[in-house]
Amino acid sequence: MPYQLHYWPTIQGRGEFVRLALEAAGADYVDVARLPESKGGGESALGERLGDPDNARPAFAPPFLIDGDVVVGQTAAILLYLGPRLGLAGVGESDGLWTHQLQLTIADAVAEAHDTHHPISTGAYYEDQRDAAEQRAKAFRDERIPKFLGWFERVLQRNPAGSLHLVGDVQTYADLSLFQLVDGLHYAFPKATARALAKTPAVEKLHDNIKRRQRVHDYLQSPRRIAFNEDGIFRRYAELDG
Amino acid sequence: MPYQLHYWPTIQGRGEFVRLALEAAGADYVDVARLPESKGGGESALGERLGDPDNARPAFAPPFLIDGDVVVGQTAAILLYLGPRLGLAGVGESDGLWTHQLQLTIADAVAEAHDTHHPISTGAYYEDQRDAAEQRAKAFRDERIPKFLGWFERVLQRNPAGSLHLVGDVQTYADLSLFQLVDGLHYAFPKATARALAKTPAVEKLHDNIKRRQRVHDYLQSPRRIAFNEDGIFRRYAELDG
Repeated sequence: MPYQLHYWPTIQGRGEFVRLALEAAGADYVDVARLPESKGGGESALGERLGDPDNARPAFAPPFLIDGDVVVGQTAAILLYLGPRLGLAGVGESDGLWTHQLQLTIADAVAEAHDTHHPISTGAYYEDQRDAAEQRAKAFRDERIPKFLGWFERVLQRNPAGSLHLVGDVQTYADLSLFQLVDGLHYAFPKATARALAKTPAVEKLHDNIKRRQRVHDYLQSPRRIAFNEDGIFRRYAELDG
Repeated sequence: MPYQLHYWPTIQGRGEFVRLALEAAGADYVDVARLPESKGGGESALGERLGDPDNARPAFAPPFLIDGDVVVGQTAAILLYLGPRLGLAGVGESDGLWTHQLQLTIADAVAEAHDTHHPISTGAYYEDQRDAAEQRAKAFRDERIPKFLGWFERVLQRNPAGSLHLVGDVQTYADLSLFQLVDGLHYAFPKATARALAKTPAVEKLHDNIKRRQRVHDYLQSPRRIAFNEDGIFRRYAELDG
């Protein structure tokens, strides 16, 4: 039975980290909310499933994954579950834990990227928090992007198995997620990200290598990959880059 | 050999979620940075360990835990590692995953609580971002505290094993972490948290029950429990409550 991914149908968002893992592994899955409404797709069906009062273990928010009797929410927990099943969590408990630790740090960076355009409230429009957004984006560009990418560069450079992967010499969901983080930062903050990547060559190389992997390449070219847009986490507002 | 916890020695912060799990389980551990400098304690020794160039798998930030050959960072990943070892992760893979999913949602709430006093930059003083802080705190009080605590209330009310625990009928690290979240919110936002708790009786009861558990009670009364203060995540600034 295919994995069921439940996530907003019009953005990459946090669901994209799960989509990438499923795609890179060639897994059989359905991106349920992107089906036609007649087949259970659409945002209102997603909302109904999220709010189902009969679910004893509801997710706080999308994404959530259904695999038979298992329902799991929170992007990093979904990847923790899928990792060993898709062969994307390295070898043994130690690699699995390290892969997860990397993912959690990527999740922190993603949350901070989101807050550059919503520093005051997720419930208000960007336009109503633009002054604070410009201040937060400056701090994110000047301090946080270099700090996060610099840390991933050190992790790659120190990997005893070589700097092509974050964990050992195999592809993990952390590699795929770092690709997505860099891709998103590059979309939202092209100038600041180019500056940071100039100092983190192994991170840039990992991004380029993942992009060229056959299954990832095919996915990125397909209609299954939703384009970046200004409803997602990574948004291109010229006034927030520099 | 005792577990080694490495975290800032003067705040509860994110390390407190790990301290609580270790204390509630009666585990043998050393809170290394709180030792005298002559025994390896202090902030500068912590910084040196964090920046150790020979560590192939460095943590991005404290806390990190050392257990023999294992070094693990990121609060939720530390608890993922400790959970089964301390008997704080429920029964089987399904409970373990659900416990972790709950922890990740608590971590999201904690990050948002932090950003009420630092909505623009963690690298700048609160006083220099106070206007934005007042706006963000209002949204957090009005929208986010009720949303998070309301979700945990539903989880407790729907637990087939009863509303005393988040996962089955045993104590998990998610229970301990929800106690800490509520304790911190109550410290930082006494008025707003009292309003929210009036609508989430099972959450309030869980907080009170955990506080009375013998080992937790003893810990909270001991000098090992650092008091809340305005260097930590949960800060009491009167102008941010209401």
